Amino acid sequence: MSPEALFSTEVALGIDLGGTHVRAALVDARGAIVSCAKKRVEDRAPAAVVEVIGAAASEAQQGAAQAKVVACGVGAAGQLRGDTGVVAVAPNLGWRDVPLGSMLAKALGRPVRVVNDLSAAAWGEKCVGAARGERDVYTVFVGSGVGSAVIANGQLVLGASGVAGELGHTKWVPDGRLCGCGERGCLEAYAGGHNLIAQMREAIAAGESPKLSALGGGDLSRLTAQVLEEAAVTGDPGARRIYEQAVSLLCLAIANQVTVLNPARLILGGGVLRHSPKTFDRLVEGIGRFASATSRQGLKISPAALGDDSGLIGAALLARGGLLGSG
Amino acid sequence: MSPEALFSTEVALGIDLGGTHVRAALVDARGAIVSCAKKRVEDRAPAAVVEVIGAAASEAQQGAAQAKVVACGVGAAGQLRGDTGVVAVAPNLGWRDVPLGSMLAKALGRPVRVVNDLSAAAWGEKCVGAARGERDVYTVFVGSGVGSAVIANGQLVLGASGVAGELGHTKWVPDGRLCGCGERGCLEAYAGGHNLIAQMREAIAAGESPKLSALGGGDLSRLTAQVLEEAAVTGDPGARRIYEQAVSLLCLAIANQVTVLNPARLILGGGVLRHSPKTFDRLVEGIGRFASATSRQGLKISPAALGDDSGLIGAALLARGGLLGSG
Repeated sequence: MSPEALFSTEVALGIDLGGTHVRAALVDARGAIVSCAKKRVEDRAPAAVVEVIGAAASEAQQGAAQAKVVACGVGAAGQLRGDTGVVAVAPNLGWRDVPLGSMLAKALGRPVRVVNDLSAAAWGEKCVGAARGERDVYTVFVGSGVGSAVIANGQLVLGASGVAGELGHTKWVPDGRLCGCGERGCLEAYAGGHNLIAQMREAIAAGESPKLSALGGGDLSRLTAQVLEEAAVTGDPGARRIYEQAVSLLCLAIANQVTVLNPARLILGGGVLRHSPKTFDRLVEGIGRFASATSRQGLKISPAALGDDSGLIGAALLARGGLLGSG
Repeated sequence: MSPEALFSTEVALGIDLGGTHVRAALVDARGAIVSCAKKRVEDRAPAAVVEVIGAAASEAQQGAAQAKVVACGVGAAGQLRGDTGVVAVAPNLGWRDVPLGSMLAKALGRPVRVVNDLSAAAWGEKCVGAARGERDVYTVFVGSGVGSAVIANGQLVLGASGVAGELGHTKWVPDGRLCGCGERGCLEAYAGGHNLIAQMREAIAAGESPKLSALGGGDLSRLTAQVLEEAAVTGDPGARRIYEQAVSLLCLAIANQVTVLNPARLILGGGVLRHSPKTFDRLVEGIGRFASATSRQGLKISPAALGDDSGLIGAALLARGGLLGSG
């Protein structure tokens, strides 16, 4: 974009706060990123993170000095207390009850809207990505954890206390595997990336997985969801058991949400699926089999389109109150 | 209400269309029933049913001659084609693709909004019943079938093609029991009233259920969900297996929706639960155990409050565009 075109452009500042990095972007009214910056989070103390966010925001603003910031939104990897700006729990940052919204508002000198990172990403996909123009969208992310976001009647469904969408903590096996949330039998305990790796290590330790032992080559850090898929395809018993269980629970869990929510479009995103087209195809097949006949008629399924930018764009547009020209 | 108070009262006509009866009511702006009438459906042909609805509506109007009807809504026991007024499938009436909305609009001389009966009932409970004043509500009905309705951000979630809420057709047992919908392993195939009775008959035929055989006394029509619960409590093996499976699947299915939707209030209604306080308590206990920790904090669970009137009231208020004075 030429400097002239930026003259007095009104933009929203979108921030993506993960466990290791902060990204900040200026996003225009059509959802395009005008300028962006990325900073590493070294110190996870809230005050230090707020400082890093401020630095990333400044750098993004320097990249488009003529743009006028009219709103600011943050997508944070954690559970929020409704729309209060308070981060109730952010495991990757080791946070509990951090008033991020008010801290950032003070630092940036403007009101800041804080939403969950998956909600922000789903909103980005709805406004300018894979679900553009749809009113009813269900988005599932399979990465180190499993999460989802619901858009119904054209609005994000945040829930009564702001924790809607926790598909990863739906229960499937009473008294089953222990999940990172402290409860047992959650979908994420079987199908989240962290737990896939934990199960691979267990299978190797139990001597159940010659292929995984060989692929890992003694270096357990080589174990990834992709390695699991490859070993499962070749018939390794341990890998196969872990992989098939994860896929089958994901299919049932997602299909059941399609049945209840009847979305026009289902978006499947997140690191595990992005690097594993075979798993994506298996999910599409399984969801088509298990979703109710009426809910799967006309259902469109697609991968996330915006990659890592969806959260930045979504947070900015949510803070701004939606996409210019959209309903 | 005195005749004077009715003078020029603006009301909406609410209609509840089931498989055997039609009820019509005039509902005032505060959600109170001013007058109502009930007619039996003898002939299930669409034209005949429309005639019965017209007769019930006339009778209700005669009961409050001074009231002015400003809107009309129908809650129909069937699957609709979005907001088109077309009933796609109504198994109890043997209907397929009946344009009920336009037929009724012609007969009644005014626009008619047609919604699913459970959506209407949930809206009634939200406006003047157990979920009064809540913005995020999940309502589950366990009767001859199993259904649900989602209210999020203060709005009914009907879904992209109007079939949202089909909790009864979420899948739990791949290749499991055949359901009335033609698919296998649905929640309703294990926990719906019709299927509970079918399973009791199977258990008796297999000699697995001495108590059920004795209670039924040769008369299979005596088998009800209540009888099942009683036999299960006394330790009858067949009854216990069927009952425990139904309760445990209902707990998981409902809890998982609480986790994803994060409602402020969960309403449990329908014939099976109304006649079985013990089952209601079991569900409350199980949902409290399986819903995610964050979604169950502050969750209120209550029985439906309006009984059979919820659908009439909800259909009327939906047609009118909500409750007077509500957001």
